Parts: sequence; structure tokens; C-alpha cells
Amino acid sequence: MERPLTTVDVVIFTVLDGQLQVLLVRRPDGPEEPFPNAWALPGGFVDVRRDDSLESCARRKLLAKTGVSSPYLEQLGSWGGRARDPRGWSATHAYFALLPADCVQLKQEEGKFAQWHPVNELPPGQPLAFDHAGILQAALERLRSKVEYTSLPAFLLPEPFTLPQLQKVYEIVLGRPVDKSGFRTRALAAGFLDEQGLLDVGSPRPAMGYRLKDRAAAVYFPRPFSPRSS
Amino acid sequence: MERPLTTVDVVIFTVLDGQLQVLLVRRPDGPEEPFPNAWALPGGFVDVRRDDSLESCARRKLLAKTGVSSPYLEQLGSWGGRARDPRGWSATHAYFALLPADCVQLKQEEGKFAQWHPVNELPPGQPLAFDHAGILQAALERLRSKVEYTSLPAFLLPEPFTLPQLQKVYEIVLGRPVDKSGFRTRALAAGFLDEQGLLDVGSPRPAMGYRLKDRAAAVYFPRPFSPRSS
Repeated sequence: MERPLTTVDVVIFTVLDGQLQVLLVRRPDGPEEPFPNAWALPGGFVDVRRDDSLESCARRKLLAKTGVSSPYLEQLGSWGGRARDPRGWSATHAYFALLPADCVQLKQEEGKFAQWHPVNELPPGQPLAFDHAGILQAALERLRSKVEYTSLPAFLLPEPFTLPQLQKVYEIVLGRPVDKSGFRTRALAAGFLDEQGLLDVGSPRPAMGYRLKDRAAAVYFPRPFSPRSS
Repeated sequence: MERPLTTVDVVIFTVLDGQLQVLLVRRPDGPEEPFPNAWALPGGFVDVRRDDSLESCARRKLLAKTGVSSPYLEQLGSWGGRARDPRGWSATHAYFALLPADCVQLKQEEGKFAQWHPVNELPPGQPLAFDHAGILQAALERLRSKVEYTSLPAFLLPEPFTLPQLQKVYEIVLGRPVDKSGFRTRALAAGFLDEQGLLDVGSPRPAMGYRLKDRAAAVYFPRPFSPRSS
């Protein structure tokens, strides 16, 4: 029986220039290529000789594009069917990753130009390849739905960071301000931060610097840090 | 390049005899078969000629086993790697479905005997085939994590049902009692129920019967119906 094509795609987020950004790569040009020159999520075929698992395949592709070996990585879902790839029936396993921008070294390999794009300002008039626009939308919804009650946005920050810097990243991902005192209380009570000593942040008083206790797993808060609108 | 095997598996839940139960099938016997005679989740290979998408493949397999064409169906995740299937590198796309037991007609086809099993009393001494024990565990965690703030358990009930019957199903899935007045208030306020007229439930006073407004989509409550333990 004919086997579907099997790919893994990774939605890689960071915060850069005060905006939530996603890493996109240019599809190669050529008459045989699907979606030539279109922007796409980084990813590609599972290599049954090199990849032990779907997750290790995702980590391999992320390392190849960014030089980062241990980001926050979460399975997002799978998209598969007859119509999504002109090369045949295909199924992709999508993951999303959160990274601090300063640890990324974009690898420009095989003519696949990689570039950060603000999620609110994707290249105009150039739809993403395959069904990647829908996958990116699903990743944004997953991330935003978890912001208010998890430590996820902290994975987007270089360490050490201050609580105001952390709050700013929560606000960037949410797209709206959050209450300062409620945020401080919940963030400190949730127990995912380690104090790293005072930082000179250019203001008269130094601020406490923090880092994540565990860069491999998100912490869930018992309650959201600002009242959820229903 | 060699393509991985691509399968879809469906974790099918119902409530029967006051217990949350899962549908398992016997793997075929034979020297060439992986996990011969073991219990497994219903599923199998994607058929690129018949299946338009992963979800339509899941619906096909569910219909074949249960005779039900439109259950509540949600994508659970994917599991893939070199070691999970002795036939080679394989990836499965797992879904979970919720059904009322009374609409199921178990199809016993191709010697694949299908049977309901209480999730708390799986066949002793017989581990599930492949990595299906882990997939079942993930489905249980997903279902239980959503019970307190969604209409999901209602999809397990035949219609019409009373509020006490609905509460009982929530308690069966959660594995603990819930507060009656809080449950009634939240369930009615969430707006997912249509009144169907009074039912004779064998007690002196008839009770209002309800059914779901929409059997295709779950409704999310703004707040859980009992205080969450943190």
C-alpha cells in the first residue's frame, strides 16, 4: 500500500524588537518544487535512518536552522490529507518552540533563506506554503491560551531577566497590558523563578534578576494572573 | 527516501454500567503479526486512495468498529519513532471519541474481536499492543483535564438526559463527587443544553430532559464548576 509522505514542521517563536516573531524560511526555487520561493515554516521529511522519533526529528530541524539544541518544545498537532502537498498524500507533525532571540544563529543553508517575521506583519501578498498559515494560527492560539496560567513566555527571554521584563513579554504575547501587582504575586508564587542577584538596569535602583529553574518544562499556575474575560 | 508507516488510532470512550470504558480490539493472530492476540486501540493504516484527510481516516475506522458516523472527535496527538512497531519506523495520529453506549453496534470484523473495557480494569497481565497504553493514558488525562470546564462528558450520554444523570457522568469521569448546586448553575449558564420536556424518571416528580444544542463541538465554561484544587 502506498505510504503517505511524513514531515515535521516547527513553529519557532521569539520576542525581538518588542514583537512576537516567527521564523520563516524561503522555499527553494525550481519547476519541480512545491510552492517555489514561498515563505514556509522550517521543517521537512522524517529521515528514518537519522531520526529516532518525531520529537528528535523536530529537534534536528530546529538545530539545523537556529543552532539551538534545547528550546522549549511542545507538540502542536498533525495536519494530513490528500490536498495539502502537490507531491502526494502527506501528513505533517507540527511542534512549536520558544527561544530567546539572542541565542539563535540563523543558519542559511541550501539556499533556504531564514528570517524572523513579526506574527502581526507577515509578508504581504505572499501566502505561506502548504497549510502553514493554518498551522501558525493554531500555534498562536495555543501559545496565547496558555499565557495567563503558565510560565511559557519566560522561555522567550534571555537570562537573567527582571520581573518588569518578564511582564513585558507576557504583554507582548497577549497583546494587552496586565495588572502589575497581580502579575508579580502570581509569578513569584508559582515557583518557576530562581533569583540570580541584582542587575544594573540603568535606573537608580538595581532590580532582581531571575532565571528559569527548569528550561525543559513549563510550570502551570493554579489560577490565571489576571481575571479572565469570559 | 523510505517513508514511515502512517496509521491512525482512535481512543473511543463511553460510560457503561456506571464506569468510563474504552473500546479495545484483539490484534489478529499469526507469526507475521505484531503483538498477536494483544488488546489494542482500534485503528490502522491510512489508505491514501480512500481517506481524504487524517480526520476522515479516523471517522472511517470509528464507523467500521462502532457503526457511529458522527461522534465527538478530537485530535489527541501523534506518536512516532523507530521502535514502536516491529514492522518499521511508524507514526500514528491519535484521536479520541466520546459516544453514548446505546448507539454503538460493535462490528466484529476480520476476526478483530472488539470489546468495551472499564478504564480502571484493563485486562490483567496483558499489556496493550504498541505504545497504546501511553496513548490511552494521554487520552484519559486530556479528558479529565477538560471535564470541569467543558461540556465534554455530555457526549457520553444518550439523549434526553436529566441534570442528575449528567452530573453522574461528570462524577464518573472525574472519579469523585461534585457539588450539586454549583454543577446545576454552571451547566445551565454555559448554554449548551436544550430543554426537551419533562421525563418520567421513576420518581414522584418528573424531571426536565435535556439534549446538546450541538453534538459536533464542545462548549467551554468561563469558570470550572467546582473550585479547582491547586
